Amino acid sequence: MSITKPSLPKGTRDFSPQEMVKRNYIFDTIKTVFKKYGYAEIQTPSMENLQTLTGKYGDEGDKLIFKILNSGNYLSDLDFRYKLGEEWIKFNAETALYLLKKFEDSSGFMPENLDERQFLNTVKNIPRYLEKLSSTLAKNISEKALRYDLTVPFARYVVMHQSEISFPFKRFQVQPVWRADRPQKGRYREFYQCDADVVGSPSLLNEAEFILIYHEALSKLGLKDFNIKINNRKILYGIAETIGQTDKFMEMTIALDKLDKIGNIGVTDELIKTGFSELEAVEVLSFLIADQTGFTIGKKLDNLRLIFGTRSKIGLKGIEEIEKVFDYVSKLTSDNSELATTIELDITLARGLNYYTGCIFEVKTNEVTMGSIGGGGRYDDLTGMFGLKDLTGVGISFGADRIYDVLEELNLFPASAAQGTKVLISNFDEAAELYALPILQQLRTANISAELYPSSAKLKKQMSYAHDKNIPYVILIGGDEMESGLLTLKDMQSGEQQKLGIKTIIGQLGKGL
Amino acid sequence: MSITKPSLPKGTRDFSPQEMVKRNYIFDTIKTVFKKYGYAEIQTPSMENLQTLTGKYGDEGDKLIFKILNSGNYLSDLDFRYKLGEEWIKFNAETALYLLKKFEDSSGFMPENLDERQFLNTVKNIPRYLEKLSSTLAKNISEKALRYDLTVPFARYVVMHQSEISFPFKRFQVQPVWRADRPQKGRYREFYQCDADVVGSPSLLNEAEFILIYHEALSKLGLKDFNIKINNRKILYGIAETIGQTDKFMEMTIALDKLDKIGNIGVTDELIKTGFSELEAVEVLSFLIADQTGFTIGKKLDNLRLIFGTRSKIGLKGIEEIEKVFDYVSKLTSDNSELATTIELDITLARGLNYYTGCIFEVKTNEVTMGSIGGGGRYDDLTGMFGLKDLTGVGISFGADRIYDVLEELNLFPASAAQGTKVLISNFDEAAELYALPILQQLRTANISAELYPSSAKLKKQMSYAHDKNIPYVILIGGDEMESGLLTLKDMQSGEQQKLGIKTIIGQLGKGL
Repeated sequence: MSITKPSLPKGTRDFSPQEMVKRNYIFDTIKTVFKKYGYAEIQTPSMENLQTLTGKYGDEGDKLIFKILNSGNYLSDLDFRYKLGEEWIKFNAETALYLLKKFEDSSGFMPENLDERQFLNTVKNIPRYLEKLSSTLAKNISEKALRYDLTVPFARYVVMHQSEISFPFKRFQVQPVWRADRPQKGRYREFYQCDADVVGSPSLLNEAEFILIYHEALSKLGLKDFNIKINNRKILYGIAETIGQTDKFMEMTIALDKLDKIGNIGVTDELIKTGFSELEAVEVLSFLIADQTGFTIGKKLDNLRLIFGTRSKIGLKGIEEIEKVFDYVSKLTSDNSELATTIELDITLARGLNYYTGCIFEVKTNEVTMGSIGGGGRYDDLTGMFGLKDLTGVGISFGADRIYDVLEELNLFPASAAQGTKVLISNFDEAAELYALPILQQLRTANISAELYPSSAKLKKQMSYAHDKNIPYVILIGGDEMESGLLTLKDMQSGEQQKLGIKTIIGQLGKGL
Repeated sequence: MSITKPSLPKGTRDFSPQEMVKRNYIFDTIKTVFKKYGYAEIQTPSMENLQTLTGKYGDEGDKLIFKILNSGNYLSDLDFRYKLGEEWIKFNAETALYLLKKFEDSSGFMPENLDERQFLNTVKNIPRYLEKLSSTLAKNISEKALRYDLTVPFARYVVMHQSEISFPFKRFQVQPVWRADRPQKGRYREFYQCDADVVGSPSLLNEAEFILIYHEALSKLGLKDFNIKINNRKILYGIAETIGQTDKFMEMTIALDKLDKIGNIGVTDELIKTGFSELEAVEVLSFLIADQTGFTIGKKLDNLRLIFGTRSKIGLKGIEEIEKVFDYVSKLTSDNSELATTIELDITLARGLNYYTGCIFEVKTNEVTMGSIGGGGRYDDLTGMFGLKDLTGVGISFGADRIYDVLEELNLFPASAAQGTKVLISNFDEAAELYALPILQQLRTANISAELYPSSAKLKKQMSYAHDKNIPYVILIGGDEMESGLLTLKDMQSGEQQKLGIKTIIGQLGKGL
């Protein structure tokens, strides 16, 4: 076996014990809140059939799906045809055979009847052909792919298990997804998604509860200043309808989405550039003014209702939905004024040009410069792609990797989230080891995570082991201790040492378990 | 978007909420014990570079590795050469180009100068060529693969992070692995492994602690009758050395491994069949008799020591190691006689012909017919394959899927392991919903997992939702309840109903949180 220099595929990461404890702290906090609101966990396989995934994420998304090579002799399933005399003969991959023979015989090959000029000509076209071939061949040699998100597998799950499911179905799912994106700072090829969705319930109570879930989970994680933005796709559509440009809904949404960067006037310019009339652009501007920062949500909604007038029923429906959501939220949290200030109506919020049809959400922290740390919304036809029509759903997602970075930057991980073993027993010599064994087991019986250093190494080495592993206490056992039965308990942070009986130590270390 | 009939790749599974709660119960129990013994969690990426994995699992294993197709225009990296005049010209994949052109022009292709006889002749050889080509091509179009086990990625992790790690390094890891095995009952293409290993410590305390970990975790899961078998590869090697057949170590081990099925005489026959002399076979038999069921471990070890005599130092070292492990175990658990009866020395235990060099373990339940539910052992050179020599380690693994089946069959999952939401509030009409909202939030503020049915559906439907979701309590709110402020709490299991104030309900449901 030759020696392999170890490396990791680009865009992937190892997680050390210290990182894992912090990641689990985030996931556990979010999961606990999901459960409290009645969401139950499911898991789906990492692999899905390729056809389950393709066509669901747009052309660009399709290219980013990691495909798995068919296992074993995967080429034998390729289907080729050859015209022999009058008949078409169908058989497996003589193409592959020919390729192999030529490849093996001559270290690369070239059709023999091609001349140099012809050859150089074809070389020019190689890149274009290759891309086509890559995708043609991929379809034939790969039937499975790695999960690209949790939403499509969830839709598949719901359709496949519809007879066992009691609707409304409230599920959460925390699993990795894979994307063949170009890796860069904060963007990985394997990362965890953390989603909750409910399908089969049109009630806007669900939307309201998701706002509370965001608020509770992020507050528990120690965030103090964040915004939950809300909008409704029906309001966006209503604006397009009001100005008589529903077929330019997409262009309008893209322009509105840039408000943060380019301001009111910028958006107007952008609209005119993409083919809207000046009048239309000004009408859109009136919506932006109606929604401007500083107005209360009630005021904003009143303004919008006024502009819609009788021109867009859908727009009015959007307003009504948002009102109902806020109504639920305030009934659920009459005593929580802090929550009210975190919610913000923003009619420029779009959440991509995807499947959302109703309320949409986006969460941002104001304490650190960072993209959104969560988002979601209502969709009316997610399972339609698998043949189950008219099942409405709404869901949200937490951006766990970004939340990790935020908590790290704000120093919000609790000390307990860095702690594994609670106490290390030192090991001076064989006699001390022997003496330590029943003590070790007494600690564990009391559910205290404990280790005995497994050899009589130098004390310095044992102490630095405790230090590196963030172990808060060390029990030192030497001749004195064995004689008196009083053990030396060292607090690694303060450096303080006390001589105590094992029962006292257990009482002290066991606190808070 | 065309409708896709949803399906799962063969050998993969969805996990429903009910299954997830049970699986988490198993994983959490095992993880808690790992942590108590000082093991810390790490995670490695699902994908490893192909070269990290190949050559580590034998030829058969290599075939079972799931390879990931290079993303994007993966053929452009192929390296082909062509002889133009006198020079070799190196460029990308004209092979692929030619293949594409021919494939597109004629729906399959055939070298034009091949006659029918020649053609049929080559067709005969297709399967052989195809297999070769599949593996040649796979090397070129795939650089990454899915994790096949947790051991090799762990070795890679240790070598890559050696400068940050404080040795001895005690880690556990619970993640899925993938194998392109033929799926069958109980064998999946994606399944979780649940491993703990310590590297950098030769102390046999580690072996002893793993025995305790097995005992504690399985007992916590409710298993009452199981065996932890132990052996030492040095004893096996010692037997081969004693009979003067170290070069037939493998054949001997395979024959011994069959003892359970074919008995003493069968093993002797098997040995003679594979080329051992009658005398050698009888000598092996004497070891089996020395180790027979019914003898205490002390007696067995004495017997073995007697037979080894001065003929195998390695064999004696194996005995010594086992004795030391038992010594540690008894010092750690002087009061636990139950544990003593679970441990069994079995010199026929081999744990495959892999990297183990010292003590080996295997765990079986006696309550259900089932293969081993755990196993492991010591290895002296796991990280050598990545260039880090002389790092000894020992580890164990829990077979989570099998443990799941055992607990299911013995009905050992606690009722709490099937429970998510604790209480559902019924929803009769808008007035009741309004009344319920603050109650819902009061329950959640008390950390009680609660749901309000999100629409005023028929009561029967709401009750069957609670039933299907295993929700133990329902709060019914009608006109009476709203007037009196006393809510009806229904115990779903007993059917009993009580009229209680919300504070009393919270006190009752909050117990044990």
